[in-house]
Amino acid sequence: MSGNTSFDFSALTERQKYKLLIGAVVPRPIALVTTVDSQGRVNAAPFSFFNCLSAEPAILALGVENRHQDLAFKDTARNIRITGVFTVNIVSDSILAAMNVCAVPFAPGIDELQEAGLTAAAGDKVACPRIAESPVAFECKQHVTLEIGASRQIVLGEVLAAHIHSGLVNDRLHIDPYGLDAIGRMGGHGYARTRDYFDLPTMTISEWEDLKRGPSARKSSSI
Amino acid sequence: MSGNTSFDFSALTERQKYKLLIGAVVPRPIALVTTVDSQGRVNAAPFSFFNCLSAEPAILALGVENRHQDLAFKDTARNIRITGVFTVNIVSDSILAAMNVCAVPFAPGIDELQEAGLTAAAGDKVACPRIAESPVAFECKQHVTLEIGASRQIVLGEVLAAHIHSGLVNDRLHIDPYGLDAIGRMGGHGYARTRDYFDLPTMTISEWEDLKRGPSARKSSSI
Repeated sequence: MSGNTSFDFSALTERQKYKLLIGAVVPRPIALVTTVDSQGRVNAAPFSFFNCLSAEPAILALGVENRHQDLAFKDTARNIRITGVFTVNIVSDSILAAMNVCAVPFAPGIDELQEAGLTAAAGDKVACPRIAESPVAFECKQHVTLEIGASRQIVLGEVLAAHIHSGLVNDRLHIDPYGLDAIGRMGGHGYARTRDYFDLPTMTISEWEDLKRGPSARKSSSI
Repeated sequence: MSGNTSFDFSALTERQKYKLLIGAVVPRPIALVTTVDSQGRVNAAPFSFFNCLSAEPAILALGVENRHQDLAFKDTARNIRITGVFTVNIVSDSILAAMNVCAVPFAPGIDELQEAGLTAAAGDKVACPRIAESPVAFECKQHVTLEIGASRQIVLGEVLAAHIHSGLVNDRLHIDPYGLDAIGRMGGHGYARTRDYFDLPTMTISEWEDLKRGPSARKSSSI
């Protein structure tokens, strides 16, 4: 190793912190989040400051940025604040180009789904549509929103329902990673597909002890 | 499309919710989290209920599960509670096998780093070591911890410092995705590499208008 480049975060600007975080905390799952405004107009925007953080309750987290100019809420944050609900649509390779249309900085009130050629399907549990073309959609109600700083909110949503394209999920609730073909977000303009997939089971203590004993032990093992 | 399989989360067990979340919210970045206990002994454990959720302040979130038998804190949660600090080490292909050793359910007090052949390097800002072999390490202090349910905590940590292997980051703070070679977590025993990488810049409104006008417009465009 040729050493480290170290950064004291108290000496960095917001933009510098952002670049280091988005380049290093990868790959990030992508939520194409649908919401509705007070007049029922649909908004769709992609987020990669996003993950599941708990299974019981089932919690999805979104890191939402306010507008830099005036710190006003962007559409997604404002709509969640008004309606208390949102839907997370998982981004696969098949809807990647459409997702990138939803990322265009349209004026509020423009229907990103229509621009992107995506279809809104009515929610079962929440008054907010999901995207029919998305392989997986999670209907969520706001659990709690944290005001983490002037420019950022963290929205935690509890999942009320999931809709998964039939054929992608089996009766043991395993989801087919190849069929899902999800896309991860990287730094800058970068993305990564998930097709370079492999399995690596977690070992028990005795499997690890076998492996440590070396090649002769491994020969008779399935590891 | 052949329709959806829909799930009402109020009718699912914790295990069933977990399986749908880990299979669908992919790819997840992996934090190999180092902590120390009250006697200074190092613990290392991997988490994929993990992401950055804010740049200002710089916040990393961890979803931490308690033990199923008695809901007691596992080592990472207990150590963060005692010391208030932790270090996130990003998992690359080069430390994947070592990460999987750290995932073996060793008894408390076992030094996972030693078992895995990894090297502890002293923290600059926190009394907790980072992993020298990890391409990126973020030193964090606990910002707030949410008791989200009996079996789950969400730990939000503020990043105080980052250490990046020299050669992976340039003077514009871009991190080389190929050199980083990060691994994403998928469902079940699955993982995905990030080598199937591509760039897809976000469009301006006028770039999108050009693209919509069709092939003749695209011909004279750089899109």
